[in-house]
Amino acid sequence: MINVSIAGGTGYTAGELLRILLHHPEVNIESVISTTSVGMSVSDIHRDLIGETDLVYSDTFKNPDVIFLCLGHGLSREFLEKNELPAGCKVIDLGNDFRNQPEFGNRKFVFGLCEQNREEIRKADNVANPGCFATTIMLALLPLASKNLLTEDIHIHAITGSTGAGKKPGETTHFSYRDNNISVYKPFTHQHLEEISNTLISAGNSNLPQINFVPMRGDFTRGIFASLYTKWNGTITDDEAIAYFKDYYADSPFVFVSDKPISLKEVVNTNKCLLHIEFHNGYIHITSISDNLVKGASGQAVQNMNLMFGFDESLGLKLKGSAF
Amino acid sequence: MINVSIAGGTGYTAGELLRILLHHPEVNIESVISTTSVGMSVSDIHRDLIGETDLVYSDTFKNPDVIFLCLGHGLSREFLEKNELPAGCKVIDLGNDFRNQPEFGNRKFVFGLCEQNREEIRKADNVANPGCFATTIMLALLPLASKNLLTEDIHIHAITGSTGAGKKPGETTHFSYRDNNISVYKPFTHQHLEEISNTLISAGNSNLPQINFVPMRGDFTRGIFASLYTKWNGTITDDEAIAYFKDYYADSPFVFVSDKPISLKEVVNTNKCLLHIEFHNGYIHITSISDNLVKGASGQAVQNMNLMFGFDESLGLKLKGSAF
Amino acid sequence: MINVSIAGGTGYTAGELLRILLHHPEVNIESVISTTSVGMSVSDIHRDLIGETDLVYSDTFKNPDVIFLCLGHGLSREFLEKNELPAGCKVIDLGNDFRNQPEFGNRKFVFGLCEQNREEIRKADNVANPGCFATTIMLALLPLASKNLLTEDIHIHAITGSTGAGKKPGETTHFSYRDNNISVYKPFTHQHLEEISNTLISAGNSNLPQINFVPMRGDFTRGIFASLYTKWNGTITDDEAIAYFKDYYADSPFVFVSDKPISLKEVVNTNKCLLHIEFHNGYIHITSISDNLVKGASGQAVQNMNLMFGFDESLGLKLKGSAF
Amino acid sequence: MINVSIAGGTGYTAGELLRILLHHPEVNIESVISTTSVGMSVSDIHRDLIGETDLVYSDTFKNPDVIFLCLGHGLSREFLEKNELPAGCKVIDLGNDFRNQPEFGNRKFVFGLCEQNREEIRKADNVANPGCFATTIMLALLPLASKNLLTEDIHIHAITGSTGAGKKPGETTHFSYRDNNISVYKPFTHQHLEEISNTLISAGNSNLPQINFVPMRGDFTRGIFASLYTKWNGTITDDEAIAYFKDYYADSPFVFVSDKPISLKEVVNTNKCLLHIEFHNGYIHITSISDNLVKGASGQAVQNMNLMFGFDESLGLKLKGSAF
Repeated sequence: MINVSIAGGTGYTAGELLRILLHHPEVNIESVISTTSVGMSVSDIHRDLIGETDLVYSDTFKNPDVIFLCLGHGLSREFLEKNELPAGCKVIDLGNDFRNQPEFGNRKFVFGLCEQNREEIRKADNVANPGCFATTIMLALLPLASKNLLTEDIHIHAITGSTGAGKKPGETTHFSYRDNNISVYKPFTHQHLEEISNTLISAGNSNLPQINFVPMRGDFTRGIFASLYTKWNGTITDDEAIAYFKDYYADSPFVFVSDKPISLKEVVNTNKCLLHIEFHNGYIHITSISDNLVKGASGQAVQNMNLMFGFDESLGLKLKGSAF
Repeated sequence: MINVSIAGGTGYTAGELLRILLHHPEVNIESVISTTSVGMSVSDIHRDLIGETDLVYSDTFKNPDVIFLCLGHGLSREFLEKNELPAGCKVIDLGNDFRNQPEFGNRKFVFGLCEQNREEIRKADNVANPGCFATTIMLALLPLASKNLLTEDIHIHAITGSTGAGKKPGETTHFSYRDNNISVYKPFTHQHLEEISNTLISAGNSNLPQINFVPMRGDFTRGIFASLYTKWNGTITDDEAIAYFKDYYADSPFVFVSDKPISLKEVVNTNKCLLHIEFHNGYIHITSISDNLVKGASGQAVQNMNLMFGFDESLGLKLKGSAF
Repeated sequence: MINVSIAGGTGYTAGELLRILLHHPEVNIESVISTTSVGMSVSDIHRDLIGETDLVYSDTFKNPDVIFLCLGHGLSREFLEKNELPAGCKVIDLGNDFRNQPEFGNRKFVFGLCEQNREEIRKADNVANPGCFATTIMLALLPLASKNLLTEDIHIHAITGSTGAGKKPGETTHFSYRDNNISVYKPFTHQHLEEISNTLISAGNSNLPQINFVPMRGDFTRGIFASLYTKWNGTITDDEAIAYFKDYYADSPFVFVSDKPISLKEVVNTNKCLLHIEFHNGYIHITSISDNLVKGASGQAVQNMNLMFGFDESLGLKLKGSAF
Repeated sequence: MINVSIAGGTGYTAGELLRILLHHPEVNIESVISTTSVGMSVSDIHRDLIGETDLVYSDTFKNPDVIFLCLGHGLSREFLEKNELPAGCKVIDLGNDFRNQPEFGNRKFVFGLCEQNREEIRKADNVANPGCFATTIMLALLPLASKNLLTEDIHIHAITGSTGAGKKPGETTHFSYRDNNISVYKPFTHQHLEEISNTLISAGNSNLPQINFVPMRGDFTRGIFASLYTKWNGTITDDEAIAYFKDYYADSPFVFVSDKPISLKEVVNTNKCLLHIEFHNGYIHITSISDNLVKGASGQAVQNMNLMFGFDESLGLKLKGSAF
């Protein structure tokens, strides 16, 4: 049993973390920190948690074994500067502060993509949890990168649910705008490109080609659907490629290759990432799906926690999917 | 051809008014007023109007024959106090300032429910356009009220689309909240109850019973679906009642009684209101549907304008429904 | 550890049962029966189960301790007539065959509303799982019925998600029809009225008033939102009533009274039922929400199973809600 | 005033055609043909047309000036083989029978992309109306093709609404499946590729590069959002390219280039196609949107009719967008 603290406890990723950790058999949530809601019930903010917790927001942690930082991007550094954590307290950052700049004082953050860095994470005290788009895309490309097979431009379109945009309401998350609507944002320039590139290079694809990534806003709440393809030079056969993907993820409890086409809701509300691979016109075409709040954020963070504390990697993460 | 001005030109009802009036054969839009967007293109705010207009926001009107007030509730009075309209300029208020308090200086507002007050509206210089819930509910009850048949409690549940809540984003219009969600608000206390009651009484139902109205937020953008019933004492037969409804609306170009059950999208993007009537367990049960932005707001406002200026009541309002 | 069989394994309720039981610590799924899909992988039909099970459809059971009947309404009787179950095999029927006609040969079905019949269910060999609308409505009325407080007409509108209509596609479950749409069906005549009435009477409300129930089709997939009210004669105070509701469900792990208004997604993907109570105009107004596939079907069935086998009532049912 | 007949009158494109033609000032609908619904009211099938028409389905045409074929793909040939049209009766086929095989007996079909073939269509007696995906994609590429600027692989992802899949319900149009879901179908092999290629070549791009097209099923009812890019070699500057697009469509009443990013609902329920162009990483990136039932089908068919009969190209097609 470990003591866990959550900083930034009112946002979407904190809510999802609570939904998971409240049923985790090895976790005691010792504190949920919020500067704006001290004294309020956690279930007054995350209304679906009624009946599941009596936790109340506090202004600081007590003596956690690990703290999850669910703060806005850029605010994790500030939090760590302002707050001295207890000796031995591990950190899992769900923001993007340390994904590409892992050094922070004495702390060195390991990039928390479990399927790539499992062994490093087991030994880590500080983990930078990957971004949601990045996770969904990296898991589709990692096996190819590990064989240095990414040699020509990679073409990616990926559609995200509205929860990826956070809790603060705005023009593009207004229901009247977003319902039955589709739009593109930050084409070719999304901030996750950097962690994707770093990861693929570190996986063994030293000369990475250009990655063309068009993110889209979908009219659904949860999930990322990525469709990506690149020229396929046939160094290995199509069947070998699929076999290699399956082999690559054989020990991963949450990544699976489907022989049939996939649809987004097959992973919603789970920590799974599903891949489907086809070959057309000299291209390898991969579809990849995950739940942006679970595998793309809080579920992956718990998966990292499980590794860091020597628990079974999937402990508390065998979630019932919503399917519909 | 008349000159039209629109005050409060950036909101949802103004946008819908523009969508209708830009194609109205007898209308020249002379000005679209906005205190916050002077000098901007109207199609920069109402993005779907690209290619349809070169109008630019101005800070005031020129010399309109009629001005539509699309201001927030309470702001119509303020606008009329601050701005002296040209002599003879008629006013159509889409807010709720004059629905229940029709006197304002020299101006006397006629309640703009065309199906009830057609003749008065033809002669009116000032019209208070009814609310969207109110319109959908009143049209379902008017024929009964006109015969003084409303004698026992009326039970109403009505579900509204998100555009009814306006453009400003908030917690209950956040896509992440509202998608696939349903909730109740202001049960038994909604502000439209007053105009509903006044209308039914003025229609002839002098001793109005209690109206129990539970408004609900739906996870769709356009439309109101009202389901309402009251005890049916059988003064007239079921068939006579249905025939009377049809007769009552025989001259109304936008209200129809369907012999089959109705679904909301049958009226979306039109100025129609559809009714369906059944009898069960000693109750008369009526379903009523309309598009809150068209028949419930801007379409009805144009219908009023048509009457006030002697145009055909349906001029510019034969809109292609979206159906899907 | 018990052996479980599921008959009718390709439908929605069977899929949901599998999602729950695959992670239930005391359950071994010994067979999933389908007459149409024998030999196929269960995850080829319930595609989201990829990576979670290698189960294959069979044409019959082996030696189960309990069999869940997820057959179409009317087909449970037929199944039991045609198949001789092993001695001691318990039955949980998710259809409506035995809810109102509990006798079947030697078998006598207990009505499986855990919150009412907990003790009987513990001793039962055959349980008739309640309907989804019925569950959501009965849980809102049970405390009042138990005090014989239902004396005047009860007015109910309840909106259901599309999964309630089952897997077979049809006109009113076509996405093009249903998206952004609302409609009424079977007003005042829904088949769940009988089990609701029987339950309320058996709970102690011997002279049940008329129940007026208008079911509606919502444009969402999961969940039922019920809004209901009845005259409130003030035998007990408002505060006493709320306190009594809380007290009535104090030992129920899944039913909670919220002091704040509720919205449907607070229970989606959980086995919870949330209630909220207000008083207006001489009425008590109750909103009640549940997930039709979980608390309204498969979750409640597992809750019944837990009671029947002496497990903790909530074992395997502490599900992460989807919230969004 | 012309007499119009519609064959295949119960499907989605026929319904949309009716919605448009019922308000067209130069059209008299003389017959709506259906083999399955003879004698039924048109508004019993297209329920939203209640109050707008008294048309009844017939089994054949009378003496039309033009007939619209809204039959399933492959059935237009069969219809023309079985039915001898009156002398001089023009044909507009909304299926795909004659798009790529324009010769049929004495009839020669002109490909009905108004923006490319305006003058030919004016003289045509037979027009093959383009497909919805094809229209949205061709309009994005035509200006480049006309300058022979398409030289390297074209990368396209396009998401379609459910109405594109037609009226017959099926697994992937089931609301429970499609709501909040995304999936890919027919990647790299969609049947519209042929008409797209033929059009771009005929427009002047003789050596067409490979077109990689990934179609996706969206969880909305109306519209196609296409995102496409190709290498940009800078033969002309970025500004020149945008200016050329605007110039190319200067005389087209329905195609506009937006200087700001676009979202799908800006064109829903209109006959418009909106384009937005950006340049990134050596690519020209174009987003293109249209309503699949209007500009992608029935609206474009009416636009063709207008040209064929010498009416103003936009007559009856200035539709109020739904915007929300």
